Amino acid sequence: VKPLSECTVAVVGLGLMGGSLAGALRGSCRAVLGVARRPGTAARAERLRLVDQGTTDETLALPQADAVILATPVRTIIRQLDRIPPLLRRGCLVMDLGSTKAQIAAAMAQLPPHVHPLGGHPMCGKETSGIEAADPTLYRNRTFILTPLDRTPDEAVTLGRSIVAAAGARPLILDPIRQDRLAATLSHLPYLLACALVLTADATTSKDPAAWEIVASGFRDTTRVAGSNVTMMLDILLTNREAVLEAASTFRTVFDELIGLTSDASEAPLRASLKASRKERRRMFP
Amino acid sequence: VKPLSECTVAVVGLGLMGGSLAGALRGSCRAVLGVARRPGTAARAERLRLVDQGTTDETLALPQADAVILATPVRTIIRQLDRIPPLLRRGCLVMDLGSTKAQIAAAMAQLPPHVHPLGGHPMCGKETSGIEAADPTLYRNRTFILTPLDRTPDEAVTLGRSIVAAAGARPLILDPIRQDRLAATLSHLPYLLACALVLTADATTSKDPAAWEIVASGFRDTTRVAGSNVTMMLDILLTNREAVLEAASTFRTVFDELIGLTSDASEAPLRASLKASRKERRRMFP
Repeated sequence: VKPLSECTVAVVGLGLMGGSLAGALRGSCRAVLGVARRPGTAARAERLRLVDQGTTDETLALPQADAVILATPVRTIIRQLDRIPPLLRRGCLVMDLGSTKAQIAAAMAQLPPHVHPLGGHPMCGKETSGIEAADPTLYRNRTFILTPLDRTPDEAVTLGRSIVAAAGARPLILDPIRQDRLAATLSHLPYLLACALVLTADATTSKDPAAWEIVASGFRDTTRVAGSNVTMMLDILLTNREAVLEAASTFRTVFDELIGLTSDASEAPLRASLKASRKERRRMFP
Repeated sequence: VKPLSECTVAVVGLGLMGGSLAGALRGSCRAVLGVARRPGTAARAERLRLVDQGTTDETLALPQADAVILATPVRTIIRQLDRIPPLLRRGCLVMDLGSTKAQIAAAMAQLPPHVHPLGGHPMCGKETSGIEAADPTLYRNRTFILTPLDRTPDEAVTLGRSIVAAAGARPLILDPIRQDRLAATLSHLPYLLACALVLTADATTSKDPAAWEIVASGFRDTTRVAGSNVTMMLDILLTNREAVLEAASTFRTVFDELIGLTSDASEAPLRASLKASRKERRRMFP
């Protein structure tokens, strides 16, 4: 089995996540190839020294790869998993960076036996997107979830771990369905809340010019993730619908209860809920 | 009329907000006196050089003051406005830092004519609280809302503006009811959403040890304000109930619509809403 240092790695999709990972892996592999949809992106990735070689032609890049990392939106990944196998070498590792894993795992299970699938989900990001925002340090000290399938051989998991380690991240092996349920509450629901809060402000206060002078850091932080890439988030929501709806339903019950206590001016139970929330937040982020 | 440099300023309540403002004003006034409930806090404020003199005895500090700044939770401010007038000099400015202004303005309207009321609401804060967290630079470059009453004389507004300027903040004159409505959407609703999100995570994922390894910066930022001081926030919610309930109701309509589109997998309108939210967020925070 080849070590990562002797592997050619192809990153498909040179946005924030793919461009950053490519840049992080350069130097740890024999070569990092970047595949972009637009020639300008491929050229820019080369110029920014994020890849050794950039191209728009997957039929050129993928046959050379010992590992292919799909860094596109989730539903694009699912289409690519269907399309690329004929281009891949025997034993090629097929990884992805998609934020939802159950539907990708199902698509990976259909891959032909000559390639080795491994789901991936790095716990990092920014509210900016595109190759311009790429940053090779983005993955450093972050958790990088890996979701192997039953069919994934140990050596493919080992190569996946080497890729994670080379980016400076910490691997965490998780079941895809469990990861999707956790991500629904900890990532996808917060995104929907942030969007709804921005739209609420837009509907109520944005006509008042004073609003933008008084908007404080609390609003800025609470809504930060509403700036995320829309195509990426849309794919996430639509491929993790059930878990997102379940998390949203729990949220609504909790929120309605807080609003009910406020409406009734039920001071003691409202204080208890706010205290419990503060305590839990401090436990999460000491 | 005395300029601020010749004024003795008494700050009542030496938590994060009061302690920080006291520290910011020291040097710009004749003296900054600090009144705390606990002797330890008064002593600590002196030791941290946030005040020239700290005491627990308002009957000692307030009669010396040309300006009194109430930096306690909103409902405490309302009780203090009832209690302190006999201690105050003729012409004394009575300001506050409470986050809701309508009920405070109503209480200020009842002050005897020998003192001059001026509502205040600085747009800053931290998720930490207490004198330990005080920071004289907290107000720098922030908006500081001032809500004068009809009865407030110009010279009292001028002194209030000098206090704001000495702290490095920008004054913004606003009507109390208008400020409360804006703050409900831009500050109080985000707090309730953050609390409800933390409690949702607590109810669903916190039993899973993987949750705390994967929790990403999006969740951390979205929930930051849930760490705010509970007594302060409780007073805010209970003194701005109507505006908070109205903002929450608008939010629920918007959120339910996003969830409905997700549930129906209505791709085009869901994308349009997420795009509108992203665009608006970018307009707010370019």
